[in-house]
Amino acid sequence: MGKIICTGLGPGNPDLMSVQSDRIIRNAGHIAYFRKKGRQGHARRIVEGMLAPEVVEYAMEYPVTTELPFDGAEYNDALARFYDDWADRLVTVATESDVVVLCEGDPFFYGSFMHLYTRFQGRVELDVIPGITGMAGCWTATGIPITWGDDVLTILTGTLSHDELERHMRTADALVVMKTGRNLPKVREALAATGRLADAWLVERGTMPDQRLARLIDVDVTDVPYFAIVLVHGRGRRPEIGGTE
Amino acid sequence: MGKIICTGLGPGNPDLMSVQSDRIIRNAGHIAYFRKKGRQGHARRIVEGMLAPEVVEYAMEYPVTTELPFDGAEYNDALARFYDDWADRLVTVATESDVVVLCEGDPFFYGSFMHLYTRFQGRVELDVIPGITGMAGCWTATGIPITWGDDVLTILTGTLSHDELERHMRTADALVVMKTGRNLPKVREALAATGRLADAWLVERGTMPDQRLARLIDVDVTDVPYFAIVLVHGRGRRPEIGGTE
Repeated sequence: MGKIICTGLGPGNPDLMSVQSDRIIRNAGHIAYFRKKGRQGHARRIVEGMLAPEVVEYAMEYPVTTELPFDGAEYNDALARFYDDWADRLVTVATESDVVVLCEGDPFFYGSFMHLYTRFQGRVELDVIPGITGMAGCWTATGIPITWGDDVLTILTGTLSHDELERHMRTADALVVMKTGRNLPKVREALAATGRLADAWLVERGTMPDQRLARLIDVDVTDVPYFAIVLVHGRGRRPEIGGTE
Repeated sequence: MGKIICTGLGPGNPDLMSVQSDRIIRNAGHIAYFRKKGRQGHARRIVEGMLAPEVVEYAMEYPVTTELPFDGAEYNDALARFYDDWADRLVTVATESDVVVLCEGDPFFYGSFMHLYTRFQGRVELDVIPGITGMAGCWTATGIPITWGDDVLTILTGTLSHDELERHMRTADALVVMKTGRNLPKVREALAATGRLADAWLVERGTMPDQRLARLIDVDVTDVPYFAIVLVHGRGRRPEIGGTE
């Protein structure tokens, strides 16, 4: 009887994987990961060169979306069936051996793994190994602390409405906006409306060899990938007094 | 000519350090870390057993605070001198060899390292290696995703006013409250006032052998360490559509 181990890969540089995750992946007999059809997939690319020669791979390819509206009920149903099927298959594999599910960043932080995780509950032994988040890779790439002192940090998704974005941008000291892509013009407008645009950074693939780092104000917001992250650093709401212990 | 490498230690379990951080620490000739006078210090404890026998250690002990009010100007001055002195000393060491500064969690996320980092600017070559945050260790310990879908996550410090806490607790889906300790009664009141108390967890030393995990509502809030973290999980603001790539 095996178990399912969901392990965080960190922000992209394999050297930033945890020691535990590195060991689990190198010793894995069965690994599963999400990807778009016809792509290698970002998770799989991170572990390139780390896998045992005899590893069995389960590439979980998202249902093709060109025929269906991305936010329609029909696509949602297809996606639910996709997660159902893969949950069943991996639970079956885990009756005989451990299965490692690769998760970009940290599994419990906006992870697609979530949709399998809920379906695994009560059916199989589960381990979750945290990872360095993609956003931490991105703020490290800027060379500036994201928060210090009593800064309030709010993490948003670009999919929120302009009003929701604006409300949070007004009250938080530091900001992270995930899921940008085609939402970036709206994110930029909300930052401008709240006086935060001049301090905003756009970071793609932080810590990877091809990382891209720019002031958002200098970026063509109509041509940015979904996984690029927008950051506004805190300035230290007031000096931190004393240490952490 | 050496450089200063500030490396994130992760949430406490040495196995959750990054591969890069693990390698840097094992090969370090000079390491520096903060601690309270008379304590081993949490950062130093995490690397116990990893250091080379000939390593030179710089224990940066916070100025003793029993004589001075913790938030007074005099204490602030003593602290500024303390950071000034250590920045000078480490820059001097780095003229001859690399110095590794140990940082709990992620260096750029509420790190005390910040106060040295600003003082190092322009004087020495600097590398910063991200780490898994303490909060990620804590939410992993709960076994529940902190965010999914379009959840808004806000990270607060218990040092904020009741009104500020309440305002953010009303508008965010998921919450993390750092720096709890003697602020916990206030944090609990703000959670109760915003209807979030029943969903709040208190986590100490997530991922460590002595981790402690409880529903906040069941905890004696007058006796909790400063580094314990309060969490409220998001519930998925709406279903996430599609994958991340």
